Amino acid sequence: MLNFKHDIPTKLYFGEGQIKKLASSLERFGKNVLLVYGGGSIKKIGLYDEVIKILKENNFNITECDGVDPNPRITTVERGVRLCKEHDINVVLAVGGGSTIDCAKAIAVGRYYEGKDLWEMVKTSWHLAKALPLVDILTLSATGSEFDAGGVITNMDTNEKLGAVYTYPSVSICDPTYTFSVSKYQTAAGSADIMSHIFECYFSRTMDSDLSDGIAETVLKSVMKNCKIALKDPTNYSARANLMADASVACSGIPGYGKQETGWPCHAMEHELSAYYDITHGVGLAILTIRWMRHILNKDVTATERFVKFAKNVMGLSGDDERALAFAGIDALENYFKETGIPMTLTELGIDDKYFEAMAAHANVDGYLKDAFVALTNEDIVEIYKACL
Amino acid sequence: MLNFKHDIPTKLYFGEGQIKKLASSLERFGKNVLLVYGGGSIKKIGLYDEVIKILKENNFNITECDGVDPNPRITTVERGVRLCKEHDINVVLAVGGGSTIDCAKAIAVGRYYEGKDLWEMVKTSWHLAKALPLVDILTLSATGSEFDAGGVITNMDTNEKLGAVYTYPSVSICDPTYTFSVSKYQTAAGSADIMSHIFECYFSRTMDSDLSDGIAETVLKSVMKNCKIALKDPTNYSARANLMADASVACSGIPGYGKQETGWPCHAMEHELSAYYDITHGVGLAILTIRWMRHILNKDVTATERFVKFAKNVMGLSGDDERALAFAGIDALENYFKETGIPMTLTELGIDDKYFEAMAAHANVDGYLKDAFVALTNEDIVEIYKACL
Repeated sequence: MLNFKHDIPTKLYFGEGQIKKLASSLERFGKNVLLVYGGGSIKKIGLYDEVIKILKENNFNITECDGVDPNPRITTVERGVRLCKEHDINVVLAVGGGSTIDCAKAIAVGRYYEGKDLWEMVKTSWHLAKALPLVDILTLSATGSEFDAGGVITNMDTNEKLGAVYTYPSVSICDPTYTFSVSKYQTAAGSADIMSHIFECYFSRTMDSDLSDGIAETVLKSVMKNCKIALKDPTNYSARANLMADASVACSGIPGYGKQETGWPCHAMEHELSAYYDITHGVGLAILTIRWMRHILNKDVTATERFVKFAKNVMGLSGDDERALAFAGIDALENYFKETGIPMTLTELGIDDKYFEAMAAHANVDGYLKDAFVALTNEDIVEIYKACL
Repeated sequence: MLNFKHDIPTKLYFGEGQIKKLASSLERFGKNVLLVYGGGSIKKIGLYDEVIKILKENNFNITECDGVDPNPRITTVERGVRLCKEHDINVVLAVGGGSTIDCAKAIAVGRYYEGKDLWEMVKTSWHLAKALPLVDILTLSATGSEFDAGGVITNMDTNEKLGAVYTYPSVSICDPTYTFSVSKYQTAAGSADIMSHIFECYFSRTMDSDLSDGIAETVLKSVMKNCKIALKDPTNYSARANLMADASVACSGIPGYGKQETGWPCHAMEHELSAYYDITHGVGLAILTIRWMRHILNKDVTATERFVKFAKNVMGLSGDDERALAFAGIDALENYFKETGIPMTLTELGIDDKYFEAMAAHANVDGYLKDAFVALTNEDIVEIYKACL
């Protein structure tokens, strides 16, 4: 087991009705609130009205920053930072899914960024000490942004989607009932995102971190079980609650404690797809994950042991032929993704091979993925992209 | 899944050599340090000298509070609080196992207690807001005190051992190499303590908290595997590291998230044993756990489902007869405890039935254990104690 640091200051209020904690969570930071949200979904479920009512009843001054896109744009961050400065904002309140929270994190840090170009901040300033405090109300079980410090921002002008470490939320309000209306497509895509966060840690060369591996396997099994229930019965509280808890843990860093870093290869490859084609992150991840798994298992026989562990402990398979068992685990995972109804090829998303080489070069800049579970060259990445067609 | 709050502010530095973080962890609180420790074990392994060297090199003023007993006494807490006031202490540094950290927590909170009788504080003031900051260096994988807010203090005059919520450590330094010299007996007893923290949450009426249950099962399997390795090979880093991580998670509250509270029946019963006879906490827990399990499974057939889950997922058993499988899981656990070499009867510890009724009455004061997984009356508790002879 390798050394690690656990340092997550976020307070989670988890469960139905936890919005009762909103006013007291904001209060200690001040009265001027920047309310960050996306499109109409929080209005459709009545959450927007509820939040406004609570804020007004408690005499907060509200400035709105709406229209955050699913892959949040640097232009929205720029707008949010301007609003923070103009309205002397004390605390940022994000209401929405991971994109909204990511955008709010970049705004919270951007408020104190001393440079002129906020895209430069995203590209270079991964650990910025000073940020506005952030409170969020989660409405989608997927990215885990409610329980980590990371955020991903897209620049459509430069075709770049970059992950950066921004700031932890002070408080996250996680009420599973806010996810009852999430569509089947987004439920399945969000679940694939949760699982990918686990895969990126689970497939590592460190074999003796029993607790991390057990948590990882637990989350994977729970997501597959509860996603299926939620797809059939969208207002099943237990299923939605389990998915929400899984999402928060999956991206917290905890499933990777004590394990060798992998560079998160599927995320690196997917960010290129989203940057070029603005696709749904979780769908891109599911498509890539299966091909990445088969590619590395074919490339490196020493990967077999970990895939056998996955096949047995997560997919519930058994068998004497280890190589066959390893591949069978991947097949079973592909079947699960298919059953959830998400597209499983890039062709279905209207993507061809036009930019694969440029995307591979950017995903692997400076040989970034040489330290992955199985090292990836640009050629490997292009092959993986092609297998996704 | 029930509502829960996650709010653990402790920063963990985990792994070999993390003592390098000691000076910076203390520095921000001030220069006057109360060093709390037990007997000779930290001197024997050279840790005392190392700590003193670091503190002196960094110009801290050291006041020592040594001689903390395995079941820490209110008299030591009183002495520590006096030292804090006399020496204008800024931060408490605990170096040792759970007893030392528990005692240090009580001192940290006691520093600001306004009453005159610190035992009154233990008995009544479970949530005290103000405390001196606390940093600890852990030397035993057992209580999880390094990652929770609780502490247990004993009053030998009144035969009382009481758990109270005190304060979270600011920083815990968890270096598995400090546990290399822990005896076989203490390794096994500590492992039983870790497992008991899990059992107290795992055996609950909430059946749909998949993540909590998966983490619980993971910790139990990891402890059984790694305790056996550590007993054979005490300096096996991987085994010691897994045990240390398991200990921190087990008592953190996380394995109980979303689950109905149980009142921790085995701890309630064991605290009476320790208070009357000053036995090793983990040993008392192991002895009680087996009899408690059999008693409640006999008493309440609806407990079967959970015991079957335990038998299958933790003990790796299978079978069609659910009642038989449930009891077989308990037998397998008893065999595991026996293999680790700890006494499995109270008679071996020189305990007879003299105080069983008084202990039962105190453990179950105001019908405290009526909300346990299976409700316990005073008569149930006496029967469980008797089965331990």
